[in-house]
Amino acid sequence: MSEGTRERIVKAGAAIMHRKGFLGTGLQEVLDEAKAPRGSFYHYFKSKEDFALAVIDYHDMNFSEETRRFLTQESLSPMARLRAFIEWRRDVYTEKGFTCGCPIGNMAQEMGDLSEPLRARLNRFIDDMAAFLHELIQAGQEAGEVRPELDAREIAYFLVGAWQGALMRMKVTKSAVPVDVFLKNAFDMLLVAGHAPV
Amino acid sequence: MSEGTRERIVKAGAAIMHRKGFLGTGLQEVLDEAKAPRGSFYHYFKSKEDFALAVIDYHDMNFSEETRRFLTQESLSPMARLRAFIEWRRDVYTEKGFTCGCPIGNMAQEMGDLSEPLRARLNRFIDDMAAFLHELIQAGQEAGEVRPELDAREIAYFLVGAWQGALMRMKVTKSAVPVDVFLKNAFDMLLVAGHAPV
Repeated sequence: MSEGTRERIVKAGAAIMHRKGFLGTGLQEVLDEAKAPRGSFYHYFKSKEDFALAVIDYHDMNFSEETRRFLTQESLSPMARLRAFIEWRRDVYTEKGFTCGCPIGNMAQEMGDLSEPLRARLNRFIDDMAAFLHELIQAGQEAGEVRPELDAREIAYFLVGAWQGALMRMKVTKSAVPVDVFLKNAFDMLLVAGHAPV
Repeated sequence: MSEGTRERIVKAGAAIMHRKGFLGTGLQEVLDEAKAPRGSFYHYFKSKEDFALAVIDYHDMNFSEETRRFLTQESLSPMARLRAFIEWRRDVYTEKGFTCGCPIGNMAQEMGDLSEPLRARLNRFIDDMAAFLHELIQAGQEAGEVRPELDAREIAYFLVGAWQGALMRMKVTKSAVPVDVFLKNAFDMLLVAGHAPV
């Protein structure tokens, strides 16, 4: 089945909004990029906010697929899976010249005070990121890799913030240093301190 | 000495830019708020970017004063000073209804790819935040409060990211939970693990 017009608009919008933010994204530019008919936007979306919710769903679908790929790498220990995920993200950002940052973190920063539906949806997405970390950290504890005294859920919540901060910092340092510092300290000093290195 | 026009413009601009971002801030709105003559903007600033640099300098001056106040609290141990600083910031954000977030983190997210002078200046500011943490963590190590095996400079760099992430998350959860999780995990699980609680 060929990609429908709505899907093309969402995909183009996700890319443009990632670079320019919610407010900086023009709807006509999105339609042009998606090769969708001029004026067709409101046929598919009630509002720009409704459109942004579809963009977030699109990112969420990608995130679910990507994390599932790492969660199911049976040949790796839980912490090695987490490390592989982070190193993969670092390489993706390196290829982009450390631009753009996280589309979800960006929109949270930009729209957290301006749209209640977007705020609530972004909050749920960041909870999903924490759930991904939580699952791996808990598995790491069961495997004896992670300090048993850590509250897996809280540490996951803490580390999602640290991860978002590292991505933001990557954008201002234009280097991978913030992610390398994240990797070293989150793993060696917090998660597996005193345990075998991953 | 009464506050000069330039100072009033910078102060008004800092407040408006904090709420609306760099791109969302109108220069005329800033002049009106500062009760400065219409059309006087380019008498004081070469460009909006030049103006934003002055706004960052203004935040930096405040940050230096505030951090000095905590650094010199001789009655508190280094980690108790750091905790007091973070609890004070949490209370400030709580009073604001968890809106706005960090003006420096916001601008880094918004402008990190769009202006090289702003990117470089914001990066330097975030380095100053890390230097503040570094000073306290190192003093905490000398006082036997902080795990001696931690690299104080790297942990400070890591925690500035975690702090920025917590402030972003506060904006989307509309609660103090991210800062409370930061406090508990940064202190109890990372800095002073196995040492006496602060």
